[in-house]
Amino acid sequence: MEIAKHGGNIYEMAEKLGIPPYEIIDFSANINPLGVPDSFRKAMLENISILANYPDPRYKNLIQSIARYHGIREDYIIVGNGAAEVIFSLISGLKPRKALLLAPTFLEYERALIKAGCEVKHYLLKEELDFRVDEGFFKAIDEDTDLVILCNPNNPTGQLVDRRMKDTILEICRERRIGLMVDEAFNEFLACPQEESMISSLENYKNLYILRSLTKFFALPGLRIGYGISSNREMLNKIEKCKEPWMVNSFAALAGEIVVKDQAYIEESRRWIFSEREYLYDKLREIEKIKVYKPAANYILFRVLDEKGSHLQEKLLRQKILIRSCANYENLNGSYFRAAVKDRLANEKLVQALKEVLYES
Amino acid sequence: MEIAKHGGNIYEMAEKLGIPPYEIIDFSANINPLGVPDSFRKAMLENISILANYPDPRYKNLIQSIARYHGIREDYIIVGNGAAEVIFSLISGLKPRKALLLAPTFLEYERALIKAGCEVKHYLLKEELDFRVDEGFFKAIDEDTDLVILCNPNNPTGQLVDRRMKDTILEICRERRIGLMVDEAFNEFLACPQEESMISSLENYKNLYILRSLTKFFALPGLRIGYGISSNREMLNKIEKCKEPWMVNSFAALAGEIVVKDQAYIEESRRWIFSEREYLYDKLREIEKIKVYKPAANYILFRVLDEKGSHLQEKLLRQKILIRSCANYENLNGSYFRAAVKDRLANEKLVQALKEVLYES
Repeated sequence: MEIAKHGGNIYEMAEKLGIPPYEIIDFSANINPLGVPDSFRKAMLENISILANYPDPRYKNLIQSIARYHGIREDYIIVGNGAAEVIFSLISGLKPRKALLLAPTFLEYERALIKAGCEVKHYLLKEELDFRVDEGFFKAIDEDTDLVILCNPNNPTGQLVDRRMKDTILEICRERRIGLMVDEAFNEFLACPQEESMISSLENYKNLYILRSLTKFFALPGLRIGYGISSNREMLNKIEKCKEPWMVNSFAALAGEIVVKDQAYIEESRRWIFSEREYLYDKLREIEKIKVYKPAANYILFRVLDEKGSHLQEKLLRQKILIRSCANYENLNGSYFRAAVKDRLANEKLVQALKEVLYES
Repeated sequence: MEIAKHGGNIYEMAEKLGIPPYEIIDFSANINPLGVPDSFRKAMLENISILANYPDPRYKNLIQSIARYHGIREDYIIVGNGAAEVIFSLISGLKPRKALLLAPTFLEYERALIKAGCEVKHYLLKEELDFRVDEGFFKAIDEDTDLVILCNPNNPTGQLVDRRMKDTILEICRERRIGLMVDEAFNEFLACPQEESMISSLENYKNLYILRSLTKFFALPGLRIGYGISSNREMLNKIEKCKEPWMVNSFAALAGEIVVKDQAYIEESRRWIFSEREYLYDKLREIEKIKVYKPAANYILFRVLDEKGSHLQEKLLRQKILIRSCANYENLNGSYFRAAVKDRLANEKLVQALKEVLYES
């Protein structure tokens, strides 16, 4: 069975198993298990007829709402058809010639860089440091580098970049006029989201570009909504000028406007995820045949320590459980897997199935 | 008041007037006045939770449905986030150096061509021929041209390209290895949609790329769904390889799957639009101070014959009626306007308001 390029491809897997997609428990996509916020469901039902109009090309209400959510200026924000589209737009605007990426990290940066004709250099994160960014990274920012991309927390490792480390990277990049793109798609899942975000540095660093997504925390990956933030208005204007019109659909715009104000959903999600993350992490650590990397967000990287790892994804699929194989990440291999934190019942099933598969005779 | 770059920007206009957007009767966007199909409303309400999953990256059900709708092979279809995105993707894949466009025509082709670094040549359609494509166009396809773009029916003129003319253009383009992109976004509004479509030529012309949209006829511009069709699999593969993942949101994919099967909606829409188009066309022709161009689709181009035309859009806006000024089209000017065919009540209001404004002392 072919390994999916991304998480979340339950459709192809279901087809191969000959079952409907909803029968698969999907640990491969890192989505808040609380599901679509009720506040948005309600707003959507009351506003179905907005679909018969073009979206507001300026996305005014959406951008206003995001600006308030972060306490930033409205003209620092560009919105896109999912964070993936924002990545492609930013890179096509920045036109970098040589970019430095973490390895492993989210795969779409490299695809967008290659499409833009940019040379890609990987900084190999060290397994013995649990794939955390170390000081060697500073040296890897060489003379030719004109773009550095961090994913924080990093995907698929679930590791945070240390705050002082981040500040040093930002400073190095400013001094050498290097762009720094920081993907904070999983920020809301962190214990201290605001403290870990680089949004507070925006005003003083025109070379800083922050990516955010409403897809993961607000459980709306089907709707496609992400945004970029920077105080570099000149660059944002340049990007907007090249963008297709109406990239964000009306429901995505409505969702973005509504969900960031839904304090009840935000708090309940965070309470739930923190407790389930601890549960799943502890239970996985009890399994001696795997090494588990301590997660900062809502997904957990682990490595199978014996040869049983090679067919783990396929074996779990027979139990209708889909995890993400990390075989196609630079600097990882087929013994690494990523699993999202889901609800208790699902998490228990995963632990049980893992034990069965790994200890079967 | 600034003229909108596209139709459908009721938001900015409403803001300037200090009224809610829904108070404006929008003749500037060419959308089926029948509104969001009930078949899709129903499907959406039953499937809200699909938003919590990523869309199927292959969009299998959607593509299957479109293939059946046109009676073509599934692998001839690529889907996009609205026809606008398909235009940009196709052009970025084709990488033309010199493109020939009609003037006037839909504005996004030129934006996409300029973004791709392509030289643009305009063929000036003749007013005395009601802006129909004439034989002079054949000669305009010069030696350097590597892409020809037709919009059929043309937007904003509402004119069809004569069938023999179209076939000749297609033949010239094949002989000289020139790509031919035909935008059929308004095909379903025509009296003979299948006969006017170039879909039947697909199999024999690998240089033919057809654009379609579900946005206009199925009244879903807020949802963003369009597609491209070609038998040139090599080119489609190339385009797909460069595309961002999950460009089409789950509701748009669901809509596309459902609405093309909704025969009752299709037939009722066509009946309604044919009768309202005739009504509006006849009523507009009664106004002596305007020249009306005979429409093939669901929008009507007209020209104000005296100096009253210069502020027509603003004057109608005071009556909460928004029409499309054609001042920013190549080969037109501020005396040209486009109005969509809407329901009887709205059409009556437009005619009444036009008379008042044009004949006021």
